[in-house]
Amino acid sequence: MPEYTGYVGRSLEFLKSNDIAVGDTVKLVGDLTYSGIIMPRYEHSDDKHIVLKLSSGYNVGLEIDKLEKIEKLFTSGKSIDTFQKLEENPSLPKVLLLSTGGTIASKVDYRTGAVTPILTAEELNLSVPELAKIANIDTEVIFSEYSENIVPDHWLQIAKKLIEYSNSDYSGIIIAHGTDTMHYTSSFLSFALAGYPIPIVLVGSQRSSDRASSDAALNLIGATKFLVECKTNGVYVIMHHNESDETIACHFGTRVRKNHTSKRSAFQTIGGDPAYIIINNKIQRNVKDDFFKVKEFKPKINLDTKVALVKYHPGYDPRLLDKIIDMGFKAIIFEGTGLGHIGKTMYDCVKKAHGKNIFLGMTSQCIDGRIGMTVYESGRDLLDLGIIPLENMIPEVALVKAMWALGNSQNNEEIKKIMLENIASEMSY
Amino acid sequence: MPEYTGYVGRSLEFLKSNDIAVGDTVKLVGDLTYSGIIMPRYEHSDDKHIVLKLSSGYNVGLEIDKLEKIEKLFTSGKSIDTFQKLEENPSLPKVLLLSTGGTIASKVDYRTGAVTPILTAEELNLSVPELAKIANIDTEVIFSEYSENIVPDHWLQIAKKLIEYSNSDYSGIIIAHGTDTMHYTSSFLSFALAGYPIPIVLVGSQRSSDRASSDAALNLIGATKFLVECKTNGVYVIMHHNESDETIACHFGTRVRKNHTSKRSAFQTIGGDPAYIIINNKIQRNVKDDFFKVKEFKPKINLDTKVALVKYHPGYDPRLLDKIIDMGFKAIIFEGTGLGHIGKTMYDCVKKAHGKNIFLGMTSQCIDGRIGMTVYESGRDLLDLGIIPLENMIPEVALVKAMWALGNSQNNEEIKKIMLENIASEMSY
Repeated sequence: MPEYTGYVGRSLEFLKSNDIAVGDTVKLVGDLTYSGIIMPRYEHSDDKHIVLKLSSGYNVGLEIDKLEKIEKLFTSGKSIDTFQKLEENPSLPKVLLLSTGGTIASKVDYRTGAVTPILTAEELNLSVPELAKIANIDTEVIFSEYSENIVPDHWLQIAKKLIEYSNSDYSGIIIAHGTDTMHYTSSFLSFALAGYPIPIVLVGSQRSSDRASSDAALNLIGATKFLVECKTNGVYVIMHHNESDETIACHFGTRVRKNHTSKRSAFQTIGGDPAYIIINNKIQRNVKDDFFKVKEFKPKINLDTKVALVKYHPGYDPRLLDKIIDMGFKAIIFEGTGLGHIGKTMYDCVKKAHGKNIFLGMTSQCIDGRIGMTVYESGRDLLDLGIIPLENMIPEVALVKAMWALGNSQNNEEIKKIMLENIASEMSY
Repeated sequence: MPEYTGYVGRSLEFLKSNDIAVGDTVKLVGDLTYSGIIMPRYEHSDDKHIVLKLSSGYNVGLEIDKLEKIEKLFTSGKSIDTFQKLEENPSLPKVLLLSTGGTIASKVDYRTGAVTPILTAEELNLSVPELAKIANIDTEVIFSEYSENIVPDHWLQIAKKLIEYSNSDYSGIIIAHGTDTMHYTSSFLSFALAGYPIPIVLVGSQRSSDRASSDAALNLIGATKFLVECKTNGVYVIMHHNESDETIACHFGTRVRKNHTSKRSAFQTIGGDPAYIIINNKIQRNVKDDFFKVKEFKPKINLDTKVALVKYHPGYDPRLLDKIIDMGFKAIIFEGTGLGHIGKTMYDCVKKAHGKNIFLGMTSQCIDGRIGMTVYESGRDLLDLGIIPLENMIPEVALVKAMWALGNSQNNEEIKKIMLENIASEMSY
């Protein structure tokens, strides 16, 4: 029974009249000649294009009016259910792939084009056959959530699972994860599992496979290569690097941020180059220092979510800060302006918060650059009020670190010490 | 009485032994030869450097140990108090310089090196003598605040002052402003004064004149050139463009953000090139479209600050959103994750807010890129709950726009219409 998922109107007619269906391998001749597998279509489908998965891992959308010739090379034979487990090659290193959900695990099947709402880690592995040439990949699903629905309890589940494998013979561990909150998760793992002996990489995809130019396969391949070849540890985010080529970037998990809603190259290291760049078979190291500043692996997987992130702006109502204080929050991370400022209208509430022994940390809504609270009067006033400048920590990372610090200490002086100790490259110099 | 402000230890001795003081014009020979004016030093002063203001407007810090020769060319004669009003050249266009405070107006005197905590607009004009060659500059102080202390009432004061000059013979108006919240102010003026007949530019400086490489003079000169030469209207932010040269960038006031705490090139147009680039005497236009989409100037200088900016993150406590609803906020601008998502834990509160007729707008904490709420389940759920996707509006701009919209309408449907109407290039396509 041929499949035409997502094709409508003229594009559906075009496929049927050429005896082509989703999953078939075809050669298409237009301005250029393309060979690949017909993919299903989902969101925003018009009826003017068909989508082809190229052997590079990229999908392209082709306008049917510009195609001169279409030739079927192979008919889709197997569905995903009939996939055989890949043969292991005992000479290859072992990698563990843990799935938590997200785009990368949701609408992805690179061979047949079939899409399941939840793709297991094993299917993810099987659907990118290139992976089996680099490593023997074991797979496990931890849970399946789009990352906007990931909450700190999920971080704990992932951390606990990783602890189970801290003494394994894996070269490294891939965590397939939605991109929306990936850098929050990577930050938590960086602190909670500081010193973890083998590298951990979080991998996602910005575009699902039913859209042109999906990046899922390339990101997974890049991550696997990194784990197998780089003899280092740390927590990393591996994603597409830029629009123009097939470069993959490997970012420190505490220095990275999603800086674009939709681009494949949305993830950027703040204030520097990515830690590693993966181009084809070469891995280029850009950082000198190790990721973990703490060398001994002593997991601390506790957290306390009573931390508020307060982004200051003109017109911010200090009564809102007052509510935060009254609600029993134990730490406030400010996203101040510029070098780390908040307006004078906030001072009374800040005094009150300090009096209640709430940890008060300052980051900047500029995102890039270091906090500098001794330069201007305002900064010095805020230091006097008990606000702690958090160097160049990214606001979201400071938030997660504060949750983790609160989970591991009740003592305000100790919390301050933890916040200012560079544990996992969250501060750079 | 010679002045040595900020010089201590060896650098003070160096100046004294060479009979040089702050304000003197000197020639220094080291690896290179520099001529300029000795500047005072303030924050973080070591005793190894002296600071020289070059004729380009830049300051440089020079290590005294590396200087081979120092020669005094002129002794500082006049103090700022004895400045004469510059002669007007009737053939030059007129520009108005309004001062509101900030670094640019606080520690700046480019000729003598004398520093006053509050420099008036007139002194600012007099202290950059290059300005008088480009335009006849009238000056006025509106108020004097570091921009972290600027509140929406200040926006109204600036807007009212600008209305007074809407029928003047000025080529354009410069607003000297602190950099911390400059893009909030530029956004408010863009909406409130949509269609304003002559160009308005906000100018600041990232580094005060007592530090090496101050950018104040160059930014002011660039702004004046822009106002005199560009026959356009709109609200712009003019700041240093990059680290490597003397390029000045002119940004649309609704598409710009301070993206670094300290770099001179901190200001960036989000998702595109700056509207104009000013290199030496050339002004290059990068945008095709006019800034204002509204052509007729009908000022609407009302606002209502009952808008909350809610940056969603894993572990965000929905009870905080609940408090915002109960406190009587009339609009909430979400900084969602990715394409515009917030977690399921928030849905009940969002429903409640929608039921209370609170305007709910979605922007992204990615900052760059467009909101896309039809791509994933979560986005579609949130649309159903009444959240309005705000295209690619920068979160801070959406916040200011919502304050302004609430000030001009009580009707929720009308507010929604205002928020989605592209008034001053706040959305780009």
